[in-house]
Amino acid sequence: LKRVVVDAFGGDNAPVDIIAGCAMALSEISDLYLILTGDEERIEQELKKHTGIDRNRVEVRHAPDVITNNEHPVNAVRRKKESSLVKALEAVANKDADVFVSAGSTGAVLAGATFIVRRIKGIKRPALAPVLPTKKDHDVILIDCGANVDMKPANLQQFAVMGAAYAERIMGIKNPRVGLLNNGAEAEKGCELTKEAYKLLQETPVNFTGNCEGRDILSGDFDVVVSDGFAGNVALKTIEGTAMMVMSVMKRELMGGIASRIGALLARGAFKRIKAKMDYSSHGGALLLGIDGGIIKAHGSSDAKAFAAALHQAVKFIDGDVVNIIRQSIESMAMPEES
Amino acid sequence: LKRVVVDAFGGDNAPVDIIAGCAMALSEISDLYLILTGDEERIEQELKKHTGIDRNRVEVRHAPDVITNNEHPVNAVRRKKESSLVKALEAVANKDADVFVSAGSTGAVLAGATFIVRRIKGIKRPALAPVLPTKKDHDVILIDCGANVDMKPANLQQFAVMGAAYAERIMGIKNPRVGLLNNGAEAEKGCELTKEAYKLLQETPVNFTGNCEGRDILSGDFDVVVSDGFAGNVALKTIEGTAMMVMSVMKRELMGGIASRIGALLARGAFKRIKAKMDYSSHGGALLLGIDGGIIKAHGSSDAKAFAAALHQAVKFIDGDVVNIIRQSIESMAMPEES
Repeated sequence: LKRVVVDAFGGDNAPVDIIAGCAMALSEISDLYLILTGDEERIEQELKKHTGIDRNRVEVRHAPDVITNNEHPVNAVRRKKESSLVKALEAVANKDADVFVSAGSTGAVLAGATFIVRRIKGIKRPALAPVLPTKKDHDVILIDCGANVDMKPANLQQFAVMGAAYAERIMGIKNPRVGLLNNGAEAEKGCELTKEAYKLLQETPVNFTGNCEGRDILSGDFDVVVSDGFAGNVALKTIEGTAMMVMSVMKRELMGGIASRIGALLARGAFKRIKAKMDYSSHGGALLLGIDGGIIKAHGSSDAKAFAAALHQAVKFIDGDVVNIIRQSIESMAMPEES
Repeated sequence: LKRVVVDAFGGDNAPVDIIAGCAMALSEISDLYLILTGDEERIEQELKKHTGIDRNRVEVRHAPDVITNNEHPVNAVRRKKESSLVKALEAVANKDADVFVSAGSTGAVLAGATFIVRRIKGIKRPALAPVLPTKKDHDVILIDCGANVDMKPANLQQFAVMGAAYAERIMGIKNPRVGLLNNGAEAEKGCELTKEAYKLLQETPVNFTGNCEGRDILSGDFDVVVSDGFAGNVALKTIEGTAMMVMSVMKRELMGGIASRIGALLARGAFKRIKAKMDYSSHGGALLLGIDGGIIKAHGSSDAKAFAAALHQAVKFIDGDVVNIIRQSIESMAMPEES
């Protein structure tokens, strides 16, 4: 059985949509075993709504408390021992589950995973890696998107190794192309950090194919884009903002005349598909890599379908043995101690 | 007369479209005086194509050499004294012209402006500031987008002052809202640089309204977004790449069925307007602020219309007395010497 623990009370649509997503995934994945944490009574109530759930593959662990987006992540994780998030992460730390999935506060997931589950030996900084759509028909991983700021080149090197392991083991990409997010395509471009990282990546056992400019992230020319968390976070949110902006301008323009209104009506199937493609929550959650267990942060606004997609990702994470692959890669690289 | 110098040989479509843009602007702006640098014979040939040019307002300065995008900017500027770019910048340094406009190599424009025209006294680093469309019906300036990397907080403070002067004097925005590009909206978020810059901006005589996340750049909630050149460059190019990606997915999806094809046909006016709105070259060029003269970098692929838009911007720059406004603001702030 693939053992996954879910924070049933994390996310804007928790627990209703979270549990609906769990029900979907349970019916789709026959060897999925779920531990759900949160208010037991409420969870049972929601589970009852879904017929045909194999209760032998669902375990509920009571946790009366909830950590919200408005709390200071570190303090909340330290104080709220009875929260659904802390209880769920403890299940990973205790090896009751291999992967944790939550649509809750990103900050609390990062803090909790680091304190409770802890990092893989040798990993200096874990990294948050969302999956993004590209112009072509495969996705790209952007690593790191905000778990860390003020990085050293060796941290970026570890991100490359972790991102490549993810692309290879979960996305099934052989010899994934790794790019370095930079302010120019030429090798000599960059800030102090990226110039040093460039040199390090050339000596790293990954398929490093050079610098990736902002405009190339979604080009499909890279499978993994490595960045410090600051620039990666800016890029990720800029993608989100730009897509939203284009969509909103489109909507306004299309409503501006009779012909274009009819046109929009005729093309509404196409628009739906565009929206689905741009909606990165449907591509699964963001992985927090470098932790000694699987940590998947689903989008805060995940609906049942998006959450089920994150659970599929969790199973692939287990099948791909990603934690051990990263552990072995890092061991074999013998990172310098000071980084 | 508003005296503007144009590198007639800078840009993908030079000199044909550049000179066509000049002809457009000359007919649209009655007090525009243009100095064109480049191969004299070729320029005269192009000028002849446009009837009705008031030759009393056009001066040609011969420059046999051209600096291309493939050259090392600093070396090219130092070596090619007879290039159209160097000759044009000399016209600004000599006060023959108040603004320089080029669609040529960004690196060469930056290097040339700094070496030949030089910085305003007190300005530590000039900054490249493009104008971007927003969801609302006004634009936003992103400053800096790649003139500098590895910044200090005081540099960002100067960018805020320069960006605000630009928004106020050229875009006509009263008390422009200045945001700091950051990885979170809360005041305590950020890397070392942005945390320090946040504090400095609170004490700066601009309308600082807080952190701006990547997703907020195009929201219309800010008039000026301040960033170090690395993250700004990543954000700018990510906007470009995402808009291109959405457009390309849209095109593919709309061609996927009869109904949506007809829909697209009916809506083609709306699509044209969306494309025009997203095309930031039509919003004018990027200003290089902090130089003791106006420096406008038009998009490399500028056509005649886009180049004419940059010339309009040049005239607004002169009318707004932007260089002196920045000079006075910086003097009155008495920046610390060590930054």
